[in-house]
Amino acid sequence: MPLQESKVSTKNLALYQQRVERHLQQFLQQYPETEPKLLQAMSYSLLMGGKRIRPFLIYSCGTLLGASLEDLDGPAAAIEALHSYSLIHDDLPAMDNDDMRRGKPTCHKAFDEATAILAGDALQTMAFEVLSQHPYQQVDAKNIVAMLQHFSRASGYSGMCGGQAIDIMQTNQPTTVSQLERMHRLKTGALIETTVRLAWHCSPKQDPTELDSLLRFASALGLAFQVQDDILDIESDSQTLGKPQGSDSLANKATYPMLLGLPQAKAKAQQLYQDALNALASLPYNTDELRQFAQYIVDRRF
Amino acid sequence: MPLQESKVSTKNLALYQQRVERHLQQFLQQYPETEPKLLQAMSYSLLMGGKRIRPFLIYSCGTLLGASLEDLDGPAAAIEALHSYSLIHDDLPAMDNDDMRRGKPTCHKAFDEATAILAGDALQTMAFEVLSQHPYQQVDAKNIVAMLQHFSRASGYSGMCGGQAIDIMQTNQPTTVSQLERMHRLKTGALIETTVRLAWHCSPKQDPTELDSLLRFASALGLAFQVQDDILDIESDSQTLGKPQGSDSLANKATYPMLLGLPQAKAKAQQLYQDALNALASLPYNTDELRQFAQYIVDRRF
Repeated sequence: MPLQESKVSTKNLALYQQRVERHLQQFLQQYPETEPKLLQAMSYSLLMGGKRIRPFLIYSCGTLLGASLEDLDGPAAAIEALHSYSLIHDDLPAMDNDDMRRGKPTCHKAFDEATAILAGDALQTMAFEVLSQHPYQQVDAKNIVAMLQHFSRASGYSGMCGGQAIDIMQTNQPTTVSQLERMHRLKTGALIETTVRLAWHCSPKQDPTELDSLLRFASALGLAFQVQDDILDIESDSQTLGKPQGSDSLANKATYPMLLGLPQAKAKAQQLYQDALNALASLPYNTDELRQFAQYIVDRRF
Repeated sequence: MPLQESKVSTKNLALYQQRVERHLQQFLQQYPETEPKLLQAMSYSLLMGGKRIRPFLIYSCGTLLGASLEDLDGPAAAIEALHSYSLIHDDLPAMDNDDMRRGKPTCHKAFDEATAILAGDALQTMAFEVLSQHPYQQVDAKNIVAMLQHFSRASGYSGMCGGQAIDIMQTNQPTTVSQLERMHRLKTGALIETTVRLAWHCSPKQDPTELDSLLRFASALGLAFQVQDDILDIESDSQTLGKPQGSDSLANKATYPMLLGLPQAKAKAQQLYQDALNALASLPYNTDELRQFAQYIVDRRF
């Protein structure tokens, strides 16, 4: 029953979306309102919607492993603050120069460039604030340090920032499938895998074999998400996407359909979806929610 | 013997400069060289010199309190990476639009704007990587988490980023002395006070009264540094400063000499220097090195 499964997944997705947004709002509210423009720009970008895929993975994997939702609020909010900063900076005129994101003006369009740079900077710092200052109940200091180690490694030069540098460098350049995959594995894959690590460090049991299975799941899912993104850039429309359809090819960025052809790109998304499901198979838990989520990722239209 | 004291201080400053630079270089070298341009931009900005005032304070306060130099390498390198990121982003065209820094082209001039934004982003992340991943010998996980909490709070919206937002907002605007002071206390003061907290968390004894004295020292010293910076912007020359002399008034930024007059600004620097020495007086240690450093801060010509 794919349709019903997809509905269930969407329902849980909405619940976790609301949960992380409430937590992000609370964190922003504790800041003094002394720099209203900066605070508005941070809130604008952080709370303008979005699928909240990373928080979903943290909540879903974490509860699977026995972590409490309250403890998972910290990593979930942190990773979304980090994601939000990366989008603000990626959209800047010197980077991808995008005017629209999620159907709204990008941060530097709604405010100004200086404010957008600063809002991104402050949201990156906020990610580390949230992750380190969260009032964990069942996570000890060693595990908090481990989370901060993985989180920083995955978001800096060896992860997200390095991937964004490749993305900019590859624009207008001949690109192979393996180069494209490497860029995605750094730019988004590293942090998607980190969701699993954060969930694992919040959990009481911490079985390395289970971590390994979940990492393989996250790795396949993260790449499936990117392939589907490239397919939607061709098959969807601007209103559904919330940004101009065809923007990748307009920007001369390599995509899977461009390099493989559309049917092969779709086959690749399906293969990655199967890889994700296979990775879940060895886990001694009910993984329906994660399976449904994987389906949602490759079935989504925006 | 002010002259001799100043020489001693400068010698120790040079030793700690070399120490933190060696550590920063080692950290950069462990990154894969897969994104050469980004790595070069990060190294360029991080290793282009600078007084390394924050690392000095960490090493000097930390050894005073019984911490090991090896443990202090982590926080010292982290705070300098963070400082370096903030300079790269402050210099960007959308921010202060500065072409020269420490006698060399700024990062976006030596490379390009996209690379400078990314290098700043990656250096901020690197600061948290270094601080969380350092192989501490005598610092337990609880103290590492505490360092990350203070460090993130002082560098984000409630600290450095907030101060930079005020700085940009106040440019071309009538500004009072108390507004100017508030901006400096957030933009640079919060992190200078954090040097003391990081040193304290690396030390074995952790006496709250001693922390309080060192925080008062750092607070006065941080503001004295800014007042002296404003004085040098008038009294020094471009070659000595490594950036255009008079750039503050050209940029219509308020300064202490502008608001108070030059003699009163000099008196304020001296008063803050005295406040810094007074704060040290109650400490049961030989604080000569910190006293000499305070003198260096208000006597320096660049």
